[in-house]
Amino acid sequence: MSVLIVGSTALDSIKTPKAENPRLLGGSASHAAVAASFFGPVKLVGVVGKDFPKKYIELYRRHKIDLEGLQILPGKTFHWSGEYEVNMNNRRTLLTELGVFETFNPTLPKAYQASEFVLLANIAPALQHHVLDQMKRPKFVVADTMDLWLNIALPDLLKLIPRLDGFVLNDSEAHQLTKEDNVFSALQKIHKMGPKYVIIKKGSHGSILSGPRGFFICPAYPLHQVVDPTGAGDSFVGGMMGYLAAAKGSIDDSIRRAMVYGSVTASFCCEGFGLNSTTKTKRAQIERRVQELEKLTRF
Amino acid sequence: MSVLIVGSTALDSIKTPKAENPRLLGGSASHAAVAASFFGPVKLVGVVGKDFPKKYIELYRRHKIDLEGLQILPGKTFHWSGEYEVNMNNRRTLLTELGVFETFNPTLPKAYQASEFVLLANIAPALQHHVLDQMKRPKFVVADTMDLWLNIALPDLLKLIPRLDGFVLNDSEAHQLTKEDNVFSALQKIHKMGPKYVIIKKGSHGSILSGPRGFFICPAYPLHQVVDPTGAGDSFVGGMMGYLAAAKGSIDDSIRRAMVYGSVTASFCCEGFGLNSTTKTKRAQIERRVQELEKLTRF
Repeated sequence: MSVLIVGSTALDSIKTPKAENPRLLGGSASHAAVAASFFGPVKLVGVVGKDFPKKYIELYRRHKIDLEGLQILPGKTFHWSGEYEVNMNNRRTLLTELGVFETFNPTLPKAYQASEFVLLANIAPALQHHVLDQMKRPKFVVADTMDLWLNIALPDLLKLIPRLDGFVLNDSEAHQLTKEDNVFSALQKIHKMGPKYVIIKKGSHGSILSGPRGFFICPAYPLHQVVDPTGAGDSFVGGMMGYLAAAKGSIDDSIRRAMVYGSVTASFCCEGFGLNSTTKTKRAQIERRVQELEKLTRF
Repeated sequence: MSVLIVGSTALDSIKTPKAENPRLLGGSASHAAVAASFFGPVKLVGVVGKDFPKKYIELYRRHKIDLEGLQILPGKTFHWSGEYEVNMNNRRTLLTELGVFETFNPTLPKAYQASEFVLLANIAPALQHHVLDQMKRPKFVVADTMDLWLNIALPDLLKLIPRLDGFVLNDSEAHQLTKEDNVFSALQKIHKMGPKYVIIKKGSHGSILSGPRGFFICPAYPLHQVVDPTGAGDSFVGGMMGYLAAAKGSIDDSIRRAMVYGSVTASFCCEGFGLNSTTKTKRAQIERRVQELEKLTRF
């Protein structure tokens, strides 16, 4: 089964205390699509400008990502620039140039509308709605979000949440959304908004699922060095959805393992700038880290 | 096998956004000893003043804690007062009255000197040294610490660390000690100081062991409400040492499970003020939560 992924497709200029890399391939949909591509076919919905480097189109193609839904429009590609602090946890945005994203209004290709697995990666909730409106009978719809939308598009987000099977957000966003300091209480409040599965990401502390079979405490892979965490959350949810779409059996049977695969995919993402490390990763390396995580959590 | 535990024995006045409780039984040794007592016999080394309430002596006794090493001296019991912020993570000390602790210089009873399992719970490193100097041939020595000793007694602490089999500290202390932002790099630096086992506590995010068999990612039990986290770290290390002393087989065979038992004991500690919840806990409840944690982490 393929996964339809909509989100941002961008050029990221990223500065860390150790290095600076301009105009890398980035955006939530790019990270999620490459992560999902390790497990099965991916259909990408996004928009880029005429300035979008051909090498990045080639990169998508190498990962067998279906680009029928990627619009190339006159104008500039969305450009984001950010800087990380020494501890690599805090970052600040230096610049945001929306470019062709400003008027992005995706019309899904026919072949996309019947997709059963849909990932509404981080993007304005109005666009997430707009894509979901065009889907026929999706089996499993998951959305990710970010603090920006909680700040400037909360009503849209609150209308989206009840339409989701799964909702993914990080711990500070869960707190912002529910006013709950306790992550488990926040999870229960978000369930009441609709989604059957709620996942709270906690960065290097892993993530927590709340679903019909209760909680799952998902570990993060131990990394000695984080080169660039940009896109780690997108890789996590992309890898998870890719694994789920490829898995046999029920969502409940697969979602825990799917999260672990997402977590491992995200660990590779953190080991290089942008998608540099993720794109060099082989499926066998992912399997090895999943096996390691099994050993690291057994008692 | 019994565990010898030295640390502070105190009266804690604790304020949270929801309640205020004066002069509860507290101190690192009290929390650790009660936690360890679920698994086997405990020998306590500490000091209290003549004002120490009889009901707390009775409490120790109900937990079958050997009090031969508890000095009762003229003067006042160590009194600590602190206040938690709304999120229950940040706290500030309102008052510290050392009382009889100021001149505490424990001489171990004969029967204590042959103890094989020694927990140097959080207390001045000079006192930890002093107790260790009196031990004959301890099999497994673990110390806990706090930021205060990193700030005011670092040379003593640096001399203590090489004498330990296991060292336990929290993530911010590990950062302070090693200047490493990355927790796994910090673990490796601390190994180089001597201890074979290093454990970094991460509060509600669980803990991480680094030892001869690699890392172990130890989960925290999911709590919907934290009433008072005071003593949770002491309960964790106390429960762990109690379990280890009672376990058959090698340390390596038992230490992961021991950490999970410590983690669960700490979860009960957080559910009441001071030791209120821990002392009401039954061993069967601990077993149930350990089983739950097994389910919550499997994938």
